[in-house]
This record gives sequence, structure tokens and C-alpha cells, in this order.
Amino acid sequence: MSIKIGILGYGNLGRGVEAAVKMNDDITLSAVYTRRNPADLKINTEGVAVKSVSELEKGNEDIDVLVICGGSATDLPEMTPKFAALYNVIDSFDTHANIPVHFANVDKAAKAAGKIGIISSGWDPGMFSVNRLYSLSVLPNGEAYTFWGKGVSQGHSDAVRRIDGVIDCRQYTIPVPAALDKVRAGENPELTTREKHTRECFVVAEEGADLERIEREIKTLPNYFADYDTTVHFISAEEMKRDHSGLPHGGSVIYSGTTSEGTKHVIEYSLKLDSNPEFTGSVIVAYARAAARLNKEGKSGAMTVFDIAPAYLSAYSADELRAHFL
Amino acid sequence: MSIKIGILGYGNLGRGVEAAVKMNDDITLSAVYTRRNPADLKINTEGVAVKSVSELEKGNEDIDVLVICGGSATDLPEMTPKFAALYNVIDSFDTHANIPVHFANVDKAAKAAGKIGIISSGWDPGMFSVNRLYSLSVLPNGEAYTFWGKGVSQGHSDAVRRIDGVIDCRQYTIPVPAALDKVRAGENPELTTREKHTRECFVVAEEGADLERIEREIKTLPNYFADYDTTVHFISAEEMKRDHSGLPHGGSVIYSGTTSEGTKHVIEYSLKLDSNPEFTGSVIVAYARAAARLNKEGKSGAMTVFDIAPAYLSAYSADELRAHFL
Repeated sequence: MSIKIGILGYGNLGRGVEAAVKMNDDITLSAVYTRRNPADLKINTEGVAVKSVSELEKGNEDIDVLVICGGSATDLPEMTPKFAALYNVIDSFDTHANIPVHFANVDKAAKAAGKIGIISSGWDPGMFSVNRLYSLSVLPNGEAYTFWGKGVSQGHSDAVRRIDGVIDCRQYTIPVPAALDKVRAGENPELTTREKHTRECFVVAEEGADLERIEREIKTLPNYFADYDTTVHFISAEEMKRDHSGLPHGGSVIYSGTTSEGTKHVIEYSLKLDSNPEFTGSVIVAYARAAARLNKEGKSGAMTVFDIAPAYLSAYSADELRAHFL
Repeated sequence: MSIKIGILGYGNLGRGVEAAVKMNDDITLSAVYTRRNPADLKINTEGVAVKSVSELEKGNEDIDVLVICGGSATDLPEMTPKFAALYNVIDSFDTHANIPVHFANVDKAAKAAGKIGIISSGWDPGMFSVNRLYSLSVLPNGEAYTFWGKGVSQGHSDAVRRIDGVIDCRQYTIPVPAALDKVRAGENPELTTREKHTRECFVVAEEGADLERIEREIKTLPNYFADYDTTVHFISAEEMKRDHSGLPHGGSVIYSGTTSEGTKHVIEYSLKLDSNPEFTGSVIVAYARAAARLNKEGKSGAMTVFDIAPAYLSAYSADELRAHFL
């Protein structure tokens, strides 16, 4: 009784989900759905159909859970509620400020259809959120700190690529070691944006471009770089390909709290990821398993990682988990 | 609508639970129950009754959840099922091999009474188990490593105290740095018991005792020290009091797994605890909140940390959690 997964959208994340499915014996990839011409899309799993999103819209595809791999700005707010009316769905919606609205929209559609809609799965939001919540619940008198990196921020890399004269960019977010040390020591420091992270850009520029201007434009870009100490390196297209073709990422949630006068506790959850999309895809696949099970139990509506007991994520039975992993 | 807690057993853990209750505005300590003479017991919370365990046995104490603070060897196997027939209960049963039997006994009693019985709460089993499960579920192709320390092992300290000529002992368990490094690097090493941890004993001996014999007896004690590299320091009673009166502990669950050829991910959850009993008590209190809520929803039976969604642990509402902590 394999769980049948459909993937909608075949970018970095869609391929990450595809890789994760192969690691799970109880989960099968049924089809990849695309808004492009299916004939033009070659996927990494042999024998699996590539179909048009219009097939999905008919509502009778043979899948247990649809993984929606789209952008949080415009794709997911529209697509997740729409498909939650037809299938169990899961997304990785990550615009923190808009989570309540997105949750309400998905909840309404999923409840009406008797389906499960899990939103904001992945690692932040996702595994980092779960760890913030456990820590906060266990030590209510404390403070959570989230550090990202060292890793590639795709949004920041894209922002630099839009600057005139830039051909390519890879932007790394890097936690400031002194800030990490203070937090790990349980000092509960107040940290500005600049004190928490630095940013490092590797840029391939057009021949003859004004490098000084490009560097200045990057460093002063509002929202993206203006509040950070940023270093810019100009490199060749060959160096970019050789040294920066991966999408590593990671980070730490560090929580420090007290239980009595002078008694401190520090909890740290950290990730070192060779591939951000493959790890994100792996979290999504575990929660897709939960979606299928919860729906089988008769549950419906929107859910987040907060609402799902850890046992639902595992291919092992409750008895096996208690006997071997508790 | 505060949640009313009763504590059965007022040793280190009972006092840790008491300290944790004070950190939670929505939870009140109703009474401490003891097998000793209640008149002889002075507790750290003013205005709270100390009662005999026999009051509890009548089954009509005004508490929402009973926290059972007893030993896993003989106390909990008997007490948790017994009181699960009368109240919602929670314990920190930590004999890993006997968890399935203990779960079954508590489940039977709790289901018959329409109560919740949470077993094996704390940090290992407990928060460490939850982290092992999340990692295993997200990266099924991987390996979990658990390191304990640096911290005081009370069982090992007790074992040394039973040696002839020993007045007092504090035993620290310490992870081997080289082993930690290999695991953190994602090397998935095979490690023997000796390669993972060392043990350090601070011993107060009787005047004129044969220190060489004591040291030899410690280092060769089967199950406790024979499989480890152990260092023994003889100190004075004053030094013991001055330098070793706390009960710090901690450790790390490090999980390393792959999602495709050559793509590695390392997940680490680590704890640095000034007080083992106060942190354990804090985890128990969060899960006691979950027990009260789950029972209010009509649920009954035995549960572990695997079966409880993280949102149940928090004093915040689901809406607040989604808006601020996801």
C-alpha cells in the first residue's frame, strides 16, 4: 500500500522532492505535473509520466498527496487552496507574515472537500519552527535565536542578478561567529540584523562593466543588503561553475532559558545541508506521508508542522517506534 | 482555568517539576504527595499542601494531572498503571528495554478509566527521542548517534558510593571529542562504547582507605565502568561540596543521512543543562499540559512524546503559534 505522490512544478524543489521519494520504500512518485509543455520536460525518474497541470484540474488523478512546488509570492496563495479542493496537498509556503491568511484559505477549501492541506513544510518554516515551539513550551522563560547559513540564499542571488552588468551571482548568508558564541553561552544578547549575519556575493560581471558601481549597488540594495555587512567578489563564469554550483544551506535555532534563579539551559538545533532543495524535499515527503495517513483516519482541513504528532511522519509502526527509537 | 498538577515523590525530580510549574502561568501546583510522613516534608512552594500518598489512592483528589516521580526499576512499573486508573498521569520511565511492557500496562489502566497516561517523558527518553524520530523520518537513509554529557550520571555515582571505603562520589560522563568530530563531519563511523564516552569520578574516601583498591574496583566495575576509560580523582568533602554540588547534564543527538549520491546532511540537537532535574521537570510539565488537554478532548490511553503534536505542549493558542512562531 504505497503512498502515491504527485509533484506540481519541476524546479529545484520539485527535483528535491523527487530525490526524497526515492529514499522512501513506502512512497511512489505517480506523476510530475507542469505548466509547460509536458513533452519538453525530462525528469530524473524513469517510467513516471509527465503531465499537464490541466489534467490535475480535472480532479481525478490517481494520487494520495499532491506536493505543490511553487513560489510563495504568487503561486502558492492561489494554487494550494485550489488543489486542496481536489486532493490532499502539501506546500512549503514561507512568507511568514501571510501564513494566517494562507492557512485560512487552505483550511476552508480542504475542509469542504474532506482533504488535508499541510502548509509551510520544509526547514524554516518547518523543522526550525518545530524546534522553536518545543523549546518555548519546555522553557517558557527564555529566548529563541535563529541563525541561517552558511548557505546560498536564492532570493538574494536573484536580486543581484537583476543589477545592470551582472551575468550571474551566488549569495551566501553567514552567521557572525561572535553572535553565535554569545547566544550559545546563554547570554541572551540583543542583536541587530547586522550583528547576526554577514552576506558574501560571488558575481560574474559582463566584460567591461563598471565593477565599482555594481559593488556599490549591491551593498546599498534596500531590504536585501543595506542592513548587512556585505563582501563582493568578482569571479569568472568558470569559477562560478566550478566552486558554486551546489545549493548548500543550514543554520541553527538556539534557545536559552532559565528554570530558577541562575539555572540556565541552552538548546540548539542545527542543520548542515549539502542540498537545500533535497533536504526541504525530504521534510515535505515525510509530511506528505502524514497527510495521507491523517486523511485516511478521516481528518480534514489545513495543518502545519505544529499540529502533527511526530509518529505520523515515520514509515515505522507505533510499536516499532516505541521499542527501538524512544 | 489553570491546570492543576499533583506531584508524587519529592526527590530531585519532584523538586525539578515544582520549579518548572512556577515558570508556567497556566499551571498550578495543587499538592505534593509522599510515602513518608507528610508532616516531615518541607517543600519550596508556600501554601501548597503536602499529603500522604494514601489520600491519592482514594481517587478523588482535585488534580488534572498527577506527575509520578519515582524510579524506573521498581516504583514506576507499579505506580503509573495504578494511578492511571484514577487520574491523568505522566512519568519519566527510562528503562528503554521495558518500555513496550510499561506502555501496555499503562494503556490498559488508562483506557479503562478514560484517562491519559504519558510515559517516558523528559529528555532521554523524551526530547532526544523526538529528535531521533524527526531525523529518521526526514532522512531514512542515515544513522543516529546519541552522546551524553558532559554531565553527572546519578546511577554511576550511586554505584561508586556502594564500594567499600567510599563516602561520596560524583561521576561525570563525557563524550569523546574525536568521536563527536567524526559524527559531525557526516562520516557515519562505527564506534565502540569506549570510543564514544569517557567517565570521570570525583571520590571522597574514608580516612585511611586503600585508594588504590578503590580506584581498581571502580575501573573494573562490570556494566558501569569496565567498558570505558575511567579517571578517578580523590577529593575532600569540602571540595565535593564546593565544586560538585550541581547536577548539570546534556548531550547531543547527531543524525547524518544522504538524499542522493554524495549529498549529505547533518542534523544536530544538543542540550547544555545547568540542572538535569529542573530541565527534565520542565519537559514533564509541558507534556502534563498536553495530557490535560488531550483528556479534555475525550482522548484516553497511554501515549509517548511520539504521539503528541507539538502544539499541545504550548500555552499559546494555535492561531498565536501560527502567527508568531512558525
